[in-house]
This record gives sequence, C-alpha cells and structure tokens, in this order.
Amino acid sequence: MLTIFCRHTSASLLIQENAAPAARRDLERYFERIAPESSGYEHDDEGPDDMPAHLRAALTQTQLSIPVADGRLALGTWQRIYLFEHRDSTPEREIVLHLVGE
Amino acid sequence: MLTIFCRHTSASLLIQENAAPAARRDLERYFERIAPESSGYEHDDEGPDDMPAHLRAALTQTQLSIPVADGRLALGTWQRIYLFEHRDSTPEREIVLHLVGE
Amino acid sequence: MLTIFCRHTSASLLIQENAAPAARRDLERYFERIAPESSGYEHDDEGPDDMPAHLRAALTQTQLSIPVADGRLALGTWQRIYLFEHRDSTPEREIVLHLVGE
Repeated sequence: MLTIFCRHTSASLLIQENAAPAARRDLERYFERIAPESSGYEHDDEGPDDMPAHLRAALTQTQLSIPVADGRLALGTWQRIYLFEHRDSTPEREIVLHLVGE
Repeated sequence: MLTIFCRHTSASLLIQENAAPAARRDLERYFERIAPESSGYEHDDEGPDDMPAHLRAALTQTQLSIPVADGRLALGTWQRIYLFEHRDSTPEREIVLHLVGE
Repeated sequence: MLTIFCRHTSASLLIQENAAPAARRDLERYFERIAPESSGYEHDDEGPDDMPAHLRAALTQTQLSIPVADGRLALGTWQRIYLFEHRDSTPEREIVLHLVGE
C-alpha cells in the first residue's frame, strides 16, 4: 500500500477525474466559491489567500493511502492523484511517500 | 488494519451515524445543497449530476483505514461505513479492501 | 506509520496550522457557517448541534495516517493534529492509535 502525505496546511491531496480538464476547472472554481478570499478572516498574516487555503485544505485530504496490486496502484480507470495547491503563489511543496510491501 | 478504497470519482466513502435514517437523509440533502446540480458547470458530459458528483466526492473520502482489534473493526458504537453514491443512476461500483494483519 | 482513528461521528480529525490561534478561530467560524445550527434538520434527537456535528465530521476526517521517520511523525513544520469537537458540550472522546513499525 502506498501512503501519500502532504506536509502542508495550504495545499492538499485529491483523487479526481483524470480525463476532463473542464472538471478540474469546475473543481477549482467551486473551492474558490465555498472558501473564498475575503477580508472577513481574522488570520491574514500572509495575505487574503492565506486563510482560504487552510479552509480548502481542511475540506480535502492531507493523506491518501492507495492499495497496490500486481505492482500498480489500484486506482480506478478515471482516477488520478492531484496535489491541490491553494495559495496564489506556487511555493515548493514536500510530499512524503510511504510504501509498505507484502 | 483494513483499508477501504473507492475506485470512483463520483462516489465516495463516509463513516457516519448508524442508527438514525433521518441523519442520513439530512446528510444527503446537505450535500445536494452545498454542491447542487446546476447549469453553471463547464463539465457536464454525463448530465447535470456529473460535476456535483465529483464535488461531493472531493468533500468526502475516497479511502478509509480502520484499525482492527480482536478480529473486529475498531469502529465506535454509532459508526458505520457507507458508500456514498453521488450519481442519480446507480452504476456498479468497485471497492478495494486491503487487510494488513499483524 | 501511525494511524489515528476517531470513534465518533460528531467529532473528527484535522491536520492544521499549529502556530496561529486566529487560524483556528477562523476555521471554527467557517464550519459554523457552512454547516450551521438550524431548525431545518430532520434529525435533532440530541438538540440543534446534533446534525451540524455530523455534517462537519463528514466534511473533515475520521482517520489520518502519518508516516514515521527516524522515530518521529513526518509532519510538516506548520502541521499539528487536532481533534475537532463538533458538539457544544465536550463529551469524552475515544481515539484509536495504530502504529505499524518496519
């Protein structure tokens, strides 16, 4: 089994549709809408995209574990793993991969 | 430990209340409200329930790992594992179960 | 790897910012806003904070697995693990810890 762990609170992991770029754009727009940039947050040390980034990370995944079968991730046909960047800038990100064999 | 993995991006996994059917109905209505069917999505290849299904999957879980103790899942008294279907139709779904013994 | 499992459907787990208390307050206010107490839920056996607690749990995590390296959790510099209590009262909570060594 492969465990993927995102070492950040303003980026996250997501398994989503791998084929349609339009689905990715809708997804990004959706999270911009339900956790919007706003002047209404108390925490804005790093700018208006700071707190919405934490909220979008809280609503998605910091960790994913995916079974491995016959040497391949047992993802479905339409699944792909994404790093979901929530900041406007694109800071360097660290992902920990942890593979347990059997 | 048992890992449950849902091989789809329009259905997901959820651990929720096992006793009250009303709680399940409220939960379904809630996700219909925060990720509604709408004509406003760019991605609608498979109809109006296509994109909201991806959004509801993104907001819940594709994978769950549950410790096993004394041969039983260590679920709480009120917990049950659900496959959360987000499409209007009910396509066949594949779930991968991965059990690691100790 | 350490797996943390919350045996409840009205509390959940979250990896979030460890430094700024303002970020935690914004996060709590956000979940109060997107899954509010309301008289509109069918399920209210235990009061108005009953169903929103289940919704907030559904939107966050019941389980987290964190790789261990050199005897320490491989958390990022700004990450901390939180138990996110969704009820107004503070009932006793049970968390299962499952450590797999290599």
